[in-house]
Amino acid sequence: MKIEYNPIGIVLTPFKDLNGIPYQPSKAKGVEGTIVLYPKFCRGLKDLDGFSHIILLCHFHMTSKYKLVVTPSEETEPRGLFSTRSPRRPNPIGFSVVRLIDIHEDRLMISDLDILDGTPVIDIKPYFREFDSDEDIKTGWMKK
Amino acid sequence: MKIEYNPIGIVLTPFKDLNGIPYQPSKAKGVEGTIVLYPKFCRGLKDLDGFSHIILLCHFHMTSKYKLVVTPSEETEPRGLFSTRSPRRPNPIGFSVVRLIDIHEDRLMISDLDILDGTPVIDIKPYFREFDSDEDIKTGWMKK
Repeated sequence: MKIEYNPIGIVLTPFKDLNGIPYQPSKAKGVEGTIVLYPKFCRGLKDLDGFSHIILLCHFHMTSKYKLVVTPSEETEPRGLFSTRSPRRPNPIGFSVVRLIDIHEDRLMISDLDILDGTPVIDIKPYFREFDSDEDIKTGWMKK
Repeated sequence: MKIEYNPIGIVLTPFKDLNGIPYQPSKAKGVEGTIVLYPKFCRGLKDLDGFSHIILLCHFHMTSKYKLVVTPSEETEPRGLFSTRSPRRPNPIGFSVVRLIDIHEDRLMISDLDILDGTPVIDIKPYFREFDSDEDIKTGWMKK
């Protein structure tokens, strides 16, 4: 089964090559950019301006081949790929929660970005907390 | 630009048709299911068992055509599609945070599922809180 998607827009960011990109969203605080949505989708942005944060799903078009076991940045231990957020994946979909600053027609001004300039956007969803703050979340090998 | 993905596995759930599916993950508490990963990806599951929750990205293969303005379940007001989590989207990617109960070889036992039986899985990522609990999150029209 082949799944075919089409970009709904593109992200403009200050990161012109892969080397300079923060390896964690928490290191990307304050980095600003713009989502340019293709005009035919703009009506779908109605009501999004009430949200402070959005989920941005991107297609990492510039990543190289994936490995199933990887050593994350700033770590020494190899980890299973699906226990990491590495951009090199069987289906290279990027998941980012970014701050929504403003929407003007086809443009969404966003902040806290860790994405390469020119990356295709495949979906935008409203962000809300999945859990109450007292939910017990375990994050394995990751130090938070 | 066409983006082509291949499923990495499939989700087995109690929901055999679209009608019975909870319209919100919070209504799916305790609903159990299984992700069956295709064998060639199993090595990538290493270390995932330390996480209590995972992000499951699925391809909603059974959805009908999307509209850019929709009225969410249990609402009366039409909303812009990208301010909703409607499964009918230009690229019908489902985002769910599910509880990870156990992993046994190619099978992940999961809970809190709102997904149709047989839905193709396109990515699995570790879940962690994106924000400290004091971050101010605004969720527009959504009542939480």
